[in-house]
Amino acid sequence: MTAARDRGTRAGKELDRIVNFSDGVFAIVITLLILTIQVPDIPAASAAQELPGRLLELAPKFLSYVISFLVVAVYWMAHHRVFRPMRGCDRTLLWLNFLFLMTISFLPFPTSLLGEYGDQQLPVVIYAANFSVASLLLATISWYATNGHRLTDPEQDEREAKLHLIQGLAVPAVFLISIAISFFSVNAAMYSWLLLLITDPLLRRIRSR
Amino acid sequence: MTAARDRGTRAGKELDRIVNFSDGVFAIVITLLILTIQVPDIPAASAAQELPGRLLELAPKFLSYVISFLVVAVYWMAHHRVFRPMRGCDRTLLWLNFLFLMTISFLPFPTSLLGEYGDQQLPVVIYAANFSVASLLLATISWYATNGHRLTDPEQDEREAKLHLIQGLAVPAVFLISIAISFFSVNAAMYSWLLLLITDPLLRRIRSR
Amino acid sequence: MTAARDRGTRAGKELDRIVNFSDGVFAIVITLLILTIQVPDIPAASAAQELPGRLLELAPKFLSYVISFLVVAVYWMAHHRVFRPMRGCDRTLLWLNFLFLMTISFLPFPTSLLGEYGDQQLPVVIYAANFSVASLLLATISWYATNGHRLTDPEQDEREAKLHLIQGLAVPAVFLISIAISFFSVNAAMYSWLLLLITDPLLRRIRSR
Amino acid sequence: MTAARDRGTRAGKELDRIVNFSDGVFAIVITLLILTIQVPDIPAASAAQELPGRLLELAPKFLSYVISFLVVAVYWMAHHRVFRPMRGCDRTLLWLNFLFLMTISFLPFPTSLLGEYGDQQLPVVIYAANFSVASLLLATISWYATNGHRLTDPEQDEREAKLHLIQGLAVPAVFLISIAISFFSVNAAMYSWLLLLITDPLLRRIRSR
Repeated sequence: MTAARDRGTRAGKELDRIVNFSDGVFAIVITLLILTIQVPDIPAASAAQELPGRLLELAPKFLSYVISFLVVAVYWMAHHRVFRPMRGCDRTLLWLNFLFLMTISFLPFPTSLLGEYGDQQLPVVIYAANFSVASLLLATISWYATNGHRLTDPEQDEREAKLHLIQGLAVPAVFLISIAISFFSVNAAMYSWLLLLITDPLLRRIRSR
Repeated sequence: MTAARDRGTRAGKELDRIVNFSDGVFAIVITLLILTIQVPDIPAASAAQELPGRLLELAPKFLSYVISFLVVAVYWMAHHRVFRPMRGCDRTLLWLNFLFLMTISFLPFPTSLLGEYGDQQLPVVIYAANFSVASLLLATISWYATNGHRLTDPEQDEREAKLHLIQGLAVPAVFLISIAISFFSVNAAMYSWLLLLITDPLLRRIRSR
Repeated sequence: MTAARDRGTRAGKELDRIVNFSDGVFAIVITLLILTIQVPDIPAASAAQELPGRLLELAPKFLSYVISFLVVAVYWMAHHRVFRPMRGCDRTLLWLNFLFLMTISFLPFPTSLLGEYGDQQLPVVIYAANFSVASLLLATISWYATNGHRLTDPEQDEREAKLHLIQGLAVPAVFLISIAISFFSVNAAMYSWLLLLITDPLLRRIRSR
Repeated sequence: MTAARDRGTRAGKELDRIVNFSDGVFAIVITLLILTIQVPDIPAASAAQELPGRLLELAPKFLSYVISFLVVAVYWMAHHRVFRPMRGCDRTLLWLNFLFLMTISFLPFPTSLLGEYGDQQLPVVIYAANFSVASLLLATISWYATNGHRLTDPEQDEREAKLHLIQGLAVPAVFLISIAISFFSVNAAMYSWLLLLITDPLLRRIRSR
């Protein structure tokens, strides 16, 4: 009995550690993003006239910074939602989570690429592809953990798990659609990502009917 | 009964996670600030004579580093104060907190800008504007959580909450005044920020009367 | 009695702190790795034609990024495994752990070196040597803690500890063999590191016989 | 009674948060240090011949990296030792700790300076001065917390606190002596820092007599 509880406590501790580790990666990535924007280098003599213009030129970089910041926030919440019902972890979960974290910690590169060449199609496709993979991995994690209550409480509501799965698949759907859009208009593709901010409340409303 | 307590524990755990995440962002930003100062690049032959002068030239960068470090410390404490009475968190709080963290993690850019072009008005205005937004967001968080005890203990003293709100608004007041001052003297505007270090004890004294 | 328990709680808290600190270093290193890849700098006029080619040229850097990410994951799990049975910590353990963390936090340098000069033998040897030292230090930590149950539970299974030691020595074995291979083919040496991903399940299977 | 315990729990939680925050700063600084070493930029054609020599030229940077890593480890342990007996925290402690953390998070700059101009006296003096301030601040924290048991358990041994104070003052003593030595030999000054690694066990032995 005590051994079982001990094992339970240990499994919970392991899970806490992987969740904390993931939160650390999220916090570092979200904070490193600003390093993708460099302060313009202007000679002191002409700083007064040139500075406003040079800062305005950075607008696409600020835009890609803000997009990436919000996207990380969306994924932090999704990760949160997926791990909340879990009661334990195993080797497969650890590896799936590490692969997911790789797509998150990779973010400063596509963000920088988008800020530099946001008018090109390739950076938009790379950005969207990276997050499609991220969402597919997160959906896999959710499926793996809840399937047959492998790592979740038996009392856990299965409908909740299914909602997570649909939510998890809605994100790559948005990104894949945006790749299609990017063939017509690169800007429209980027703005379509804003749909991500509303898919969640939307799905929530649909379910509660 | 147990379910209610369970929900309570879970809400507390969620809250802990967002507080820890925020602390992570604070710790990373405060430590990344030093990367805004580059060691001067001098040929070995003339290093002995030139190094002292070149380091002195970095003085404005050191000043903006120290200011930003202290400002982050002030915000860490304010964030602390705002979240201490909370007993739960919801989606709106999460998003407000993420927007607040964006203004914090953005800091290395205005700090760098200030260190490079501290004699210009624009960097001073950007710096002050960024933190005015930060404080308004924190005041919004405080108002959202305490209003009708939405996320705080019903026993929580409402006067304390009001003090937080006033404190939260004192900071953007200082920054907005400094923007006004910057039209006359950029340096005076920067020194006016030091008022932030004393607004807190000042307000505390006024209240205890 | 209470004093003993108090001391026990304190020892556990100290251990938690060193484990959390180590996790922090792991999380930061794994996230900093992406900074070793710079977005190519192309004039706006020729960006459309040159970007795909220039990104392809970064392939070796992406490869060394992915390798390093997976290697950190392997070490995170190994560190986890070594510290799980511990019940306390002392000064020697702290220093051994700091030396181990030095080899981990050093990683961005050899990763960058590998991405830049992956066709040379020297970066491959430096990379492999660094992780051979890391694994030897981790094996030393495991040996130090479990030897005579110095820092582990007396009830802890000694066979488990021995397995960790063997696992710990398997990693430098792979890296040392890869150094030998690098004299014939630098690429073959790098691919031999993939063995690390299977040594663990392999040893686990052997033991369970 | 419950209120008193509640306040105790809250004070402990606040203390945990500042300790965790400090640990975060330590972990980030110790991991950022490697960014002070850049991989040499050599044309592909001559990489094979030049790489070994160019890496050897980085030796002073590696040395200053290793020194700084070990110094951070020493301070992490000292910080640990100072905060262990504490049972609460107040505003003054928070500010003293933030000032202390500023000297720690400042470290990448003097480390980089030392790696670049290690043969000059100025970087050595700056490095030693920074850590003298760090140690004086840590000694102040220790004195502030233990004086009249302001923030420590009344049962806490006062002799232990005095030892911490002496330990805290031994470090700036070593650094101040090294500044004196630097007027004769810059290298001897740097090697004198290694004394830091033995002052602790030394003082421990003296006390136990």
